[in-house]
Amino acid sequence: MNADAGPGHFPEDSVGLVQARRVAVETSLALDCGRSLPRFDLMVETYGELNAQASNAVLVCHALSGDHHAAGYHLQSDRKPGWWDNCIGPGKPIDTRRFFVVSLNNLGGCRGSSGPNSFNPETGRLWGPDFPLLTVRDWVRSQAMLADALGIRQWAVIMGGSLGGMQVMQWAIDLPERVRHACVIAAAPKLSAQNIAFNEIARQAILSDPDFHGGRFYEHQTIPSRGLKLARMLGHITYLSDAAMRSRFGSELKLAAPSFNFDVEFEVESYLRHQGQSFVDRFDANTYLLMTKALDYFDPARDYGDSLPDAFRRASARFLVLAFSSDWRFSPARSREIVRALVDAGRDVSYALIDSQLGHDDFLMPIPEYHRVLHSFLDRVANDIETTRGAQ
Amino acid sequence: MNADAGPGHFPEDSVGLVQARRVAVETSLALDCGRSLPRFDLMVETYGELNAQASNAVLVCHALSGDHHAAGYHLQSDRKPGWWDNCIGPGKPIDTRRFFVVSLNNLGGCRGSSGPNSFNPETGRLWGPDFPLLTVRDWVRSQAMLADALGIRQWAVIMGGSLGGMQVMQWAIDLPERVRHACVIAAAPKLSAQNIAFNEIARQAILSDPDFHGGRFYEHQTIPSRGLKLARMLGHITYLSDAAMRSRFGSELKLAAPSFNFDVEFEVESYLRHQGQSFVDRFDANTYLLMTKALDYFDPARDYGDSLPDAFRRASARFLVLAFSSDWRFSPARSREIVRALVDAGRDVSYALIDSQLGHDDFLMPIPEYHRVLHSFLDRVANDIETTRGAQ
Repeated sequence: MNADAGPGHFPEDSVGLVQARRVAVETSLALDCGRSLPRFDLMVETYGELNAQASNAVLVCHALSGDHHAAGYHLQSDRKPGWWDNCIGPGKPIDTRRFFVVSLNNLGGCRGSSGPNSFNPETGRLWGPDFPLLTVRDWVRSQAMLADALGIRQWAVIMGGSLGGMQVMQWAIDLPERVRHACVIAAAPKLSAQNIAFNEIARQAILSDPDFHGGRFYEHQTIPSRGLKLARMLGHITYLSDAAMRSRFGSELKLAAPSFNFDVEFEVESYLRHQGQSFVDRFDANTYLLMTKALDYFDPARDYGDSLPDAFRRASARFLVLAFSSDWRFSPARSREIVRALVDAGRDVSYALIDSQLGHDDFLMPIPEYHRVLHSFLDRVANDIETTRGAQ
Repeated sequence: MNADAGPGHFPEDSVGLVQARRVAVETSLALDCGRSLPRFDLMVETYGELNAQASNAVLVCHALSGDHHAAGYHLQSDRKPGWWDNCIGPGKPIDTRRFFVVSLNNLGGCRGSSGPNSFNPETGRLWGPDFPLLTVRDWVRSQAMLADALGIRQWAVIMGGSLGGMQVMQWAIDLPERVRHACVIAAAPKLSAQNIAFNEIARQAILSDPDFHGGRFYEHQTIPSRGLKLARMLGHITYLSDAAMRSRFGSELKLAAPSFNFDVEFEVESYLRHQGQSFVDRFDANTYLLMTKALDYFDPARDYGDSLPDAFRRASARFLVLAFSSDWRFSPARSREIVRALVDAGRDVSYALIDSQLGHDDFLMPIPEYHRVLHSFLDRVANDIETTRGAQ
């Protein structure tokens, strides 16, 4: 018996102990690459209760390195909750007293969903590099099959930041009748050449690591830790603003004088090395490659003659688009491109620019103004659910 | 006999065929790291003629990956001239009819000056990682010894971009009596945490390459090409603005549809891989590490109680500080820090912000407004030389 095992040790506005579950989808999924998966698993967490009309469901889409564990704790002893815990829970913006929240590990992920580090049922061996590369459209298809399995015909709202926001846009365009509200946070309508350049260097770091073995590193009992570490360090540069790095780490030497070797001499070096190493311990290199490619390929306008307004004319959701002033990975200018296209398409859209300091990572932070905007938006979603229920 | 070997095949405003020479400094050089070099060589090119008073000498300091070959051609068959050829020559901003221009490969470089890929006279073997790490102050000391060897007591002007501009500042502070004018282009008074972060990832890419062998890769008949390639690719992201990348490469797929593999699919990938590979063929990994460390250590205010104005109070040169609007590696805000400190120190300084598109690399480009500002500044330098000569 563990004295800490009883309830009541979590904050009152926490969803508390949660358990992930594996949803097996036994239907074939045709992918953009031309291949198909005969079946697949998705790891899922849910918070709150689905109402009788199944009209209060919220889908949370994760970003590059996220997973299904968005809120609460897996163990009483967990020191850290899920990645968006500050936003999901009783009384929080995504209020679990009102909403049924669904969070999944995307297909191709490495936290239990079918992906490169899962077993290929046809061979009985790990997929590795043979797992197909995916697009955001593929994710939308797989998430729609998950919605079917959960009995959710239409999402009250789909929301996500960064790559998560791209999934929101793709949902609203591809399956408009299944998305009532769409919340696109810190995203872009497609990557810039500079965004692609960062991804390409991260991929080259992994692909050129001698321990990568063409992606079959599992069979060699090794992992391409050098390459994955570099890729993550590089990512972190784009997640933080120059000013945030300055205020968090400064650029003063840790010692009074240089050491004249390659040991850690500046705080930011120590931070990056730590971030890189801890990522190696928890993430899969093939999944990282797959995620960066999904980002590079994202371009919903491509199917509509390169016209983003034409793409959005398919959508019927009410949109909220959020950007952060200090974000230089997907700057406010990129969010305004989304808003402009939605306006041109005659769609219902609100836009908020949140004054922020940290950079792209601010979409994960409990910035009061940000959470007020989400609260207000989700209040309207909740009212819409009530109105619809009343009308039935 | 080569039919192309005759003169007259170069543009009229070119310095034409030039030859590098090795200047041997047979004096011991005490370094900031506490070690010293009993002697050293510097590879040098000069353009134009030193006047009788030795008062028309211009020192050009190179940036991270530059060398002594700043102008003209080594061979009739050379397709590319030196790295700052658009700025140096008869009638060009640094007019070789008026000035005697000195350009060197810095100590620790890899193009013939004493450095990691040169021989350690004490062991008869390549220095490799045993070559001492250097600071910008060390470079100033070594360049002062070169000036002595060339009979130059005072430089009419010292100029350089990026890391070159840092050498200019350090010269003006450390040896004020030897610098009459100082031209600091696209530089910063010290690196930001983000700048250091980029350098750190580049270093980690090299240091973690299994072919690096602790810097003794020469002895293993190999080079850490993967790491050096990644380092250079990463550098290129910081040399170009987001907008320049967009206009040069776009972010459209090269093919109509994704290939769903890791081949080149976007123009920017092709560009980066090419830049990375060609760098591997011409640059030394130990020198790259040394150069990035010299950047990180640069902080002339450190010796003056972290007060940059106090540092500049030592200087007596007349300054020109130049920044480029599209430069995000060392943004105009960083140049304004330099200008503000010079003003606070009561020094003579002009500042020009050049409207530009390309990014940091613009300091190498023949932008008309940029060259007009340099022309005008160097006209004043030439007049100053004439006045001084007349007064003697």
